[in-house]
Amino acid sequence: MAGESDLIEWIRERSALQTKLNGLVDLGVGDDLAILKWPRDELLLVGVDQVIDGVHFDSAIHSPKQIGKKAMNRNLSDCAAMACLPAAALAAVGLPKSMTMEHAKELYQGMREAGEAFGCPIVGGDTASTPGKLTVAVTILARSAGGTPVKRSGAKAGDGIYVTGPLGGSILGRHMDFVPRIEMARKLAPVATAMIDLSDGLSRDLVHICKASGVGAILEADAIPIHKDANQLSKKDGVSALEHALSDGEDYELLFTAGRDPDKKIAVKIGRIVAEKGIWIEDRQKAKQTLKPRGWEHQVGK
Amino acid sequence: MAGESDLIEWIRERSALQTKLNGLVDLGVGDDLAILKWPRDELLLVGVDQVIDGVHFDSAIHSPKQIGKKAMNRNLSDCAAMACLPAAALAAVGLPKSMTMEHAKELYQGMREAGEAFGCPIVGGDTASTPGKLTVAVTILARSAGGTPVKRSGAKAGDGIYVTGPLGGSILGRHMDFVPRIEMARKLAPVATAMIDLSDGLSRDLVHICKASGVGAILEADAIPIHKDANQLSKKDGVSALEHALSDGEDYELLFTAGRDPDKKIAVKIGRIVAEKGIWIEDRQKAKQTLKPRGWEHQVGK
Repeated sequence: MAGESDLIEWIRERSALQTKLNGLVDLGVGDDLAILKWPRDELLLVGVDQVIDGVHFDSAIHSPKQIGKKAMNRNLSDCAAMACLPAAALAAVGLPKSMTMEHAKELYQGMREAGEAFGCPIVGGDTASTPGKLTVAVTILARSAGGTPVKRSGAKAGDGIYVTGPLGGSILGRHMDFVPRIEMARKLAPVATAMIDLSDGLSRDLVHICKASGVGAILEADAIPIHKDANQLSKKDGVSALEHALSDGEDYELLFTAGRDPDKKIAVKIGRIVAEKGIWIEDRQKAKQTLKPRGWEHQVGK
Repeated sequence: MAGESDLIEWIRERSALQTKLNGLVDLGVGDDLAILKWPRDELLLVGVDQVIDGVHFDSAIHSPKQIGKKAMNRNLSDCAAMACLPAAALAAVGLPKSMTMEHAKELYQGMREAGEAFGCPIVGGDTASTPGKLTVAVTILARSAGGTPVKRSGAKAGDGIYVTGPLGGSILGRHMDFVPRIEMARKLAPVATAMIDLSDGLSRDLVHICKASGVGAILEADAIPIHKDANQLSKKDGVSALEHALSDGEDYELLFTAGRDPDKKIAVKIGRIVAEKGIWIEDRQKAKQTLKPRGWEHQVGK
């Protein structure tokens, strides 16, 4: 059995190489806390997001590297949702006793490489042995970097609703392997009035924007881009591809609203914001029906 | 069954009340990321630390509120170790399906109250149902607030070694219920050359300081303050109270080095830093023996 301190020592050595990824890190992994020099007059954005074995991935199928990558990329996707740039990350990992040191290192390597792709070093963390399931909680710090963060609360009646890519069927593999839309987000920020990344599913994430903004929305069924994975899944389970696109979640595309059309190469229009609260979907004949949020929700005992 | 969104809604309402705890929070819980206005020219310190059922607490014995309090206080203790002030916290919670909504709220309440005691709001988090054990990972952001963070790496030969309180036997209850030494740390910062909070145990945490500083240490057996819990435990298990004080861990007192004695009301001297690498303990007759680090270490599979 190898101790936690060996793993931490290994992580510390790797992390030391990362501290020069951006000019912010004064002291990285290895003390009680990391120290960052925060750039003057830049807003600090921060969030945490976890992945758990049997919920967000399956350790019997997915490699430790894939798991680490997903854990980091979900957080980078949150940076995209606010149109800010990642600055530093931290990871709290609960390692089951059955996990080998080699796999723990691969997990860390997956996080590290995903962060590096966006100039984001891992500056701290906590590793502990758990009698439960493999759990990876990544905290992300991000900077406004000359832009204004795009919140969920800015959608106005008359705005268009847009999405950056085709949706549905991510469970076939894309949910483990996606590119956080940070570059797109930075280009969209000047026109976007509200934004979110699609993790819970279009129908539910649109509710988040509408609730925060105090507005309603009408989606156009024909305009919603359907991923080929949704079509493939539809053939298997008989649920329509549109239903998959509306409900599956974990697309990690951006859903946003804007007062004028953004670059068509980046996003397609799928509906419009209205003053009346509620979410509807309309067909080609403009027949409206209420859209029930069906995206994925973790259940908590009563 | 109640959904995650109900719990998040409840947390959001409670958190909204906290955003005015300090002047830093621009946007709290409820968007993809929280937004903070970081004070100009203040260093940002950040870390994450988790507690897991069956490892750091026992949900069959400890109340959700106690668990939440410990999760937050461990991180506040890390702020003390660096002599900085907490600014904001985030919590990633993995909730077993058996946990009731009421208990989840109490857990959050425990974190919230512990943070409030030091003006530290919870600005974000992630809640997910887990097939594993209850896991709470708290991320802490802290500010230098006019001081210089005290690292582990500044100890010099000739420095004294000090501790802020009696040690050992924390397992009898103190490990769940301690006061982070933030106020003491701010008073000690001007004299402390290196500092750490005692979580792994005196013998191991002293190694952390010595390794980071490239020095050795000699402890004086008679000078180490023994907690009455260590004496009580010693009667039960036959292990000496001194051994408990050296090895038990989770004391959450501060261990630090200084070139001159600090206020005697705050800390007692227990040894001295030497140039030669290694850790020794000497008795009244100045007979030295090598001290083996025996503090608590999480085991990771090989």
